[in-house]
Amino acid sequence: MTIHFEHELVGLKEKLLTMASHAEGAVTKSIKALVERDDDLARKVMADDAIVDQLEIEIDDLAIRMLAKAPLASDLRLITVAMKISHDLERVSDEATTIARRSVELSTEPQLKPYVDVPRMAHMATDMLKDALDAFVNRDTAKARAVIPRDKEVDALNKQLHRELSSYMVERPSTITRCLNLMVISKSLERVADHATNVAEEVVYLYEALDIRHSGHIEPPAIA
Amino acid sequence: MTIHFEHELVGLKEKLLTMASHAEGAVTKSIKALVERDDDLARKVMADDAIVDQLEIEIDDLAIRMLAKAPLASDLRLITVAMKISHDLERVSDEATTIARRSVELSTEPQLKPYVDVPRMAHMATDMLKDALDAFVNRDTAKARAVIPRDKEVDALNKQLHRELSSYMVERPSTITRCLNLMVISKSLERVADHATNVAEEVVYLYEALDIRHSGHIEPPAIA
Repeated sequence: MTIHFEHELVGLKEKLLTMASHAEGAVTKSIKALVERDDDLARKVMADDAIVDQLEIEIDDLAIRMLAKAPLASDLRLITVAMKISHDLERVSDEATTIARRSVELSTEPQLKPYVDVPRMAHMATDMLKDALDAFVNRDTAKARAVIPRDKEVDALNKQLHRELSSYMVERPSTITRCLNLMVISKSLERVADHATNVAEEVVYLYEALDIRHSGHIEPPAIA
Repeated sequence: MTIHFEHELVGLKEKLLTMASHAEGAVTKSIKALVERDDDLARKVMADDAIVDQLEIEIDDLAIRMLAKAPLASDLRLITVAMKISHDLERVSDEATTIARRSVELSTEPQLKPYVDVPRMAHMATDMLKDALDAFVNRDTAKARAVIPRDKEVDALNKQLHRELSSYMVERPSTITRCLNLMVISKSLERVADHATNVAEEVVYLYEALDIRHSGHIEPPAIA
């Protein structure tokens, strides 16, 4: 490997980590905006989505230029995985935008009840994302594999919240709009965990050259 | 370009079209299952998702092998775009699975009302997908560009349906479960249209070497 190419690989990874930090921060901020009913912060999350979009484009461009001169099959794999992770991160930031938008809608009405499960889900999902990215940086496939089953816990929380909100809507139809907004937020967090799982699977694939996607223990999109 | 590589490119495109046909067919069948309350068909859609998953893995493997010997920058771009389109098609099939699952749930209760907007949305979304794929095969960027604004129409239908179903829930709380299932189906179709739009944007990028993603006229994920 030439020193120049090696530098480019490091640059690609750094850009991806910058993107990951923005995407993960967007989710955390969007939940803070929800809990603290902070519309300004919610609007900042929506505006900052453009930064992540721009990073995705830059990573794509860099990756395609690098593919043209990648000396080894393992480099090709690394570069294509970087493109996939970048796409997942862009989607994570989109979900944060959805959460922020719904938070603004929710803050126009009295709060239904203190939020407990939603921040917990957000914590679980962003932790999964952090661990998947750590696994990528440290070539730690054991850590990546450990992320995958945690997706089921987030799915379960989403389903539980969905059931609770459904019952609540039946009992108090005046809360329907708020319940729907909370369902969307819960579903967005469930999708963030899906993206973290995708990243973890890509990392395993990358370093073990083994495709564990769609191997049966990963479920199709959960309810809601 | 060697004849062998050219044959492989043709093979990659053919596999992608096979995948597109499965994914698009899955959406159409899932809506048929909904409208005709045909649980067997819905279950077939869920089972057939595995075929699309398998095709995505095959396309990825083929693409990575081809990247290693792609002689031209334009080939690299074609191959990476094929991988992205394949990913979108896999997600389309996932959405069809969601629709099928919700159709089975809906068929356990009396039908709310005749479905008009949902089949219309499905038709619009699958037409967008077909056109985007046609544009890919025929290198027709004008056709690809024409797909992109149609996403707004599907978004608008989804929002309208969402509003109608919300009001319905307030008026008749006994319909809440059914309304929620229909909201999820409507949202899934809106996502199919998003994926078709992604494919169209990739085709434009591929043939015009111009990145129109995130250029401002594409909105972040719509409501619901």
